Amino acid sequence: MADVESEMAHLLSQNDGAMTTAALYHLRSGGGRVRAELALISARALRLPRHITIAISAACELLHNASLVHDDLQDGDASRRGKIAVWKRFGPNTAICLGDLMVSAAYSAIANASTHHLPVMIAHMHRRVSDVISGQHADLESNCVSIDQYNDVARMKSGPLLGLPVELSLIAAGLSEQVSTAVAASDAIAIAYQTTDDISDAERDISAGGLNFITLVQGDMASRVHAARLHATKHARAAIKIANTLPNEAGAGFISLAEKFDPAAEMLEAI
Amino acid sequence: MADVESEMAHLLSQNDGAMTTAALYHLRSGGGRVRAELALISARALRLPRHITIAISAACELLHNASLVHDDLQDGDASRRGKIAVWKRFGPNTAICLGDLMVSAAYSAIANASTHHLPVMIAHMHRRVSDVISGQHADLESNCVSIDQYNDVARMKSGPLLGLPVELSLIAAGLSEQVSTAVAASDAIAIAYQTTDDISDAERDISAGGLNFITLVQGDMASRVHAARLHATKHARAAIKIANTLPNEAGAGFISLAEKFDPAAEMLEAI
Repeated sequence: MADVESEMAHLLSQNDGAMTTAALYHLRSGGGRVRAELALISARALRLPRHITIAISAACELLHNASLVHDDLQDGDASRRGKIAVWKRFGPNTAICLGDLMVSAAYSAIANASTHHLPVMIAHMHRRVSDVISGQHADLESNCVSIDQYNDVARMKSGPLLGLPVELSLIAAGLSEQVSTAVAASDAIAIAYQTTDDISDAERDISAGGLNFITLVQGDMASRVHAARLHATKHARAAIKIANTLPNEAGAGFISLAEKFDPAAEMLEAI
Repeated sequence: MADVESEMAHLLSQNDGAMTTAALYHLRSGGGRVRAELALISARALRLPRHITIAISAACELLHNASLVHDDLQDGDASRRGKIAVWKRFGPNTAICLGDLMVSAAYSAIANASTHHLPVMIAHMHRRVSDVISGQHADLESNCVSIDQYNDVARMKSGPLLGLPVELSLIAAGLSEQVSTAVAASDAIAIAYQTTDDISDAERDISAGGLNFITLVQGDMASRVHAARLHATKHARAAIKIANTLPNEAGAGFISLAEKFDPAAEMLEAI
């Protein structure tokens, strides 16, 4: 993981000055590095060489952090991981420039994966970046009225960058035919994750008018939260079932992640 | 060139909906496709295969158009090529998403260049994207007091994406050792271009307080314009001299471009 961090810092520091300062400020704010972790787990399971593992991990984290820097600006969120968000700290223009730099750096990172699968990996990366941009755009403009529409936005917004670490590992291992399975697992995890997240953000989103699962169901608050928990659990368990069909336990990272978004399991434990 | 246009449209239309609409709106606004032209000329000179030529042309145009979409938002320019700018027509959030999509699409375009030079081409692309982002950022925050500083900003802001079509062609042709010559030529063209552009924007920039060569020299307006013309001519001619040293006339596109930013030649013709 240290190599992933230093690769990211290296690719964002090609010119000294203000952009490097902003990039390192953002990277040092931390984050779970969930996508790097997913890449490390699936790359190890598929016995990928070290340089390909680092390339995939760094690329996915750079794309994720680009999305955070631009999303915070678009959503007007002034803080991120307990620190002032980049756009608030350095201004909107710097945030736009930094997100662009991170997208570009992600492709430079993946180019270090010297394998004849590289062109397919890059084409797939762009397909998933297109998905996540459409998802973010749909979320910003959202006028969701049904749970189906909600699922679509959640899947598009959070699925691609959660799936990508595993999908790229599969392509690098010559298992392109398994990519659609990983996509299906990441879709389900994204819905489980978003619904779980909505439970904690419910009060804020209801008063701010944001998209939240809670607003799409009827009843008092307790029964809405219950419905959200069941929704998350249903999709988390679907994700686990799908991820289990991936070869060589390449879906092990998906499974531990999905288990975190299975509130029914918590409810059972609490009894 | 028709293949370049359709490749760009294809890579920006992976998801239907609002993003595709905004992308096609922007692409249809035209533009000189100067960078695609530079790529076609140098790729032909270096006898690159057709798919590599298209890949380089589309990648460079996508990066350039990404920079326009984000720059217009950052600068608050409401129009572009006589049409309403993307951010003004579709909103700032759509403009941010579209620029991101175009940067990503550029790397997907270059990945179609199936050559063992691809990793070096991508690493170089990221280096030049880093340069142009630093240049744009420096321009936005600029506090230029000297002509040296002005040259630096012009070089960084406009040089990288003018040089990239030729630089990538050289790398694809196995002539990486010539890249620094192309960079030097594009630096000089960028200064000539920016200074020429400043002459036509002089009145607007002076009243708006923008960075303009005219504001850095002393004297009445006529003598300032004269100084700007001399500055442009000096760098345009330096560019031609450098471009002439590139092998196989790979710099022919640079030369015809530089000739357009040589106001002294015009002055002579006018006599």
